[in-house]
Amino acid sequence: MNLSDYAVTGFDAAGIAASIKKSGAPDVALIASRTPCRAAATFTTNAFPAAPVLYDRQLLAFNSEGVHGVFINSGCANACTGTPGDVNARLTAEAVEQALGAGDNTVFVMSTGVIGVQLPMEKLLAGVPTAVNELAADGWDAASRAIMTTDTRPKLFTHTLELDGHALRFTGISKGAGMIHPNMATMLSTIATDAHIAQPLLQQALVSAVNKSFNRISVDGDTSTNDTVILLANGLAGHAEITEASSPAFAAFQTALTVICTDLAQAVVRDGEGITRFVTIRVQGAMSDAEAHQGANTIATSPLVKTAFFGGDANWGRILAAIGRAGIRVEPEKCALFISGGPDATTRLPELQLVAGGTPLPYSESTATAIFQQPEIDVRVELGLGNGQATVWTTDLSYEYVKINGDYRT
Amino acid sequence: MNLSDYAVTGFDAAGIAASIKKSGAPDVALIASRTPCRAAATFTTNAFPAAPVLYDRQLLAFNSEGVHGVFINSGCANACTGTPGDVNARLTAEAVEQALGAGDNTVFVMSTGVIGVQLPMEKLLAGVPTAVNELAADGWDAASRAIMTTDTRPKLFTHTLELDGHALRFTGISKGAGMIHPNMATMLSTIATDAHIAQPLLQQALVSAVNKSFNRISVDGDTSTNDTVILLANGLAGHAEITEASSPAFAAFQTALTVICTDLAQAVVRDGEGITRFVTIRVQGAMSDAEAHQGANTIATSPLVKTAFFGGDANWGRILAAIGRAGIRVEPEKCALFISGGPDATTRLPELQLVAGGTPLPYSESTATAIFQQPEIDVRVELGLGNGQATVWTTDLSYEYVKINGDYRT
Repeated sequence: MNLSDYAVTGFDAAGIAASIKKSGAPDVALIASRTPCRAAATFTTNAFPAAPVLYDRQLLAFNSEGVHGVFINSGCANACTGTPGDVNARLTAEAVEQALGAGDNTVFVMSTGVIGVQLPMEKLLAGVPTAVNELAADGWDAASRAIMTTDTRPKLFTHTLELDGHALRFTGISKGAGMIHPNMATMLSTIATDAHIAQPLLQQALVSAVNKSFNRISVDGDTSTNDTVILLANGLAGHAEITEASSPAFAAFQTALTVICTDLAQAVVRDGEGITRFVTIRVQGAMSDAEAHQGANTIATSPLVKTAFFGGDANWGRILAAIGRAGIRVEPEKCALFISGGPDATTRLPELQLVAGGTPLPYSESTATAIFQQPEIDVRVELGLGNGQATVWTTDLSYEYVKINGDYRT
Repeated sequence: MNLSDYAVTGFDAAGIAASIKKSGAPDVALIASRTPCRAAATFTTNAFPAAPVLYDRQLLAFNSEGVHGVFINSGCANACTGTPGDVNARLTAEAVEQALGAGDNTVFVMSTGVIGVQLPMEKLLAGVPTAVNELAADGWDAASRAIMTTDTRPKLFTHTLELDGHALRFTGISKGAGMIHPNMATMLSTIATDAHIAQPLLQQALVSAVNKSFNRISVDGDTSTNDTVILLANGLAGHAEITEASSPAFAAFQTALTVICTDLAQAVVRDGEGITRFVTIRVQGAMSDAEAHQGANTIATSPLVKTAFFGGDANWGRILAAIGRAGIRVEPEKCALFISGGPDATTRLPELQLVAGGTPLPYSESTATAIFQQPEIDVRVELGLGNGQATVWTTDLSYEYVKINGDYRT
């Protein structure tokens, strides 16, 4: 795709280097709308929310209708920084508002990087006018690169929804990978759309989409102090405003937003630290969707399961043992387990059943191993109890993960 | 110590090779009492309990006063084995009862090893008379070796309580390490005592001791299908029976039992798969002991925290982030973090405070690193909210762990 293919009517983006990172790599991104936007957002549930999270939460409550942009720095997380950190988040937002010529309380801020260190405000504020000067409709690629920390590649996606003869565009960037000292495993994402939609529905759609995408990924089970997803909608696509949650237009909007959130979230997993396999865990037949999610998450975060993925070993016993300790309703004699896999996101070998009624079938070990040695692995657990289901995307646990996170000093 | 130093009046132990393990290493252990014992036990909460767990639970409910022994095999876990597995657990127990000349329903069984495979009953039953023939008062060391799987060393402890001029002896064995395909991370322990104590108090004391010992350890957060702790008390020590929960004698018994359970549990962690450091996590000032335990467990099972331990890196940010997502009450501005460490279980460098009020102090990085590079590390988090506290023992997450659990085929 060309850089211009990511453009969203009325939005500009930029990514520049402000010398916050010692490497000199780009470290400041700006997403700006020429007209006032509606905004929606979801934030980390960590009890140590970083200063920008606290700032953005307040801003969203105060002004979710006349927003002009999102300013993101990498290289410093502004987390565990106390009152000075809170002040710096506000000063940053105000500087961006002034440089954009926008009113007060119209710009969100995000930070990712070292924690326990104050933002280098001189460098950051010097970078603000540079970022504003670089704003361009085709600046999304630059923005996606400026928010990288241990990410090995930028994460930039666009999606178009045809609605009543109008093309609604969604473009988003995300970052996240895991942690490398003393950086946090921050998962940040900003999505812009020219859709015209009432703010309460925008928030409702984002919460639903995040629950099916960003909240379904796990690299290492750790939730960052900075995790934030912000969605801006400027309403310039030209279609009639979406105002009813029960309308077909809202359903279409919801689906499209979920698609781009899933693309952005899966890209975070695929770029997980030290990943050698991308794994989809599907739990079906649980008593509820919540129980299915808890079961899938327990499998996805089990070190024993994850090292088996790394080893390419179809170790169904570890998977059953993990769901057995998930704290959800399980009846062993109703439990079945299936695996599949393939070389890429769309190609799969035939599904193979390993377990029925809680005990192993006489399956071919070589067929099972061939599946588990694919770059993409699917695990499906059928609990046989109800209609609850959930899907979680995760990675294996590799030497490289331990190296990145433990051995960085050598 | 000499082998005879572990003897408990009236108890015999044995460990023999029954060819269940391909290596020919000892794989059958038997603990037997010449007189009827009182028994107490705690079992895994995993929803896939192995056949011996199901059998022992029933037996304990049926007969907790006239027990004669515990029979343990390694090499096969008899888990996920359906009805044939249940039958095999019962047949094993019956064979041991007959060989001992004991009545029906007097012998517990435990298994650890490969899951999803039926017990090799011919070999196992052939081993029963051999084990009975080998029974001896000084057979505890042999028994402790016969229950090893990926353990690198046996775990055998004894403890004596002086009570009213009588010496009450406690001797116990444990196993556990982590998993190696397709073995389970089974944590098994059997403890014998000549104390004279009412059965309800025996069970009460065991539950309390296990909650402060075996339930406070975490190598990788995975709970096995087979985890079991059994305590036998034959009452031969000669003191007056302990019958009151409020008596000083019961308090002394409780303390002594907790000591040996802690020794046995810590030994499991110290022999954890791929361990390079032994870590004590202490959370204080929580709203309740349960919240403190949840917070300490979340720190202990965080891959990011555990890889930092491996790297010898005093990464307080990861520790705060972990407790921040533990789902317990935390107020960042009240949060303090201290570290210490030393070369062995009893020697410690001076404690160093890294965090006060949720933000880092200007501590010496080299002092912090020197502490975190010790073989034993202590982390203390003070939440400043209440009186809840808990201690959890854990390990780092090393290359070797990934190798043992992921790379076993190569």
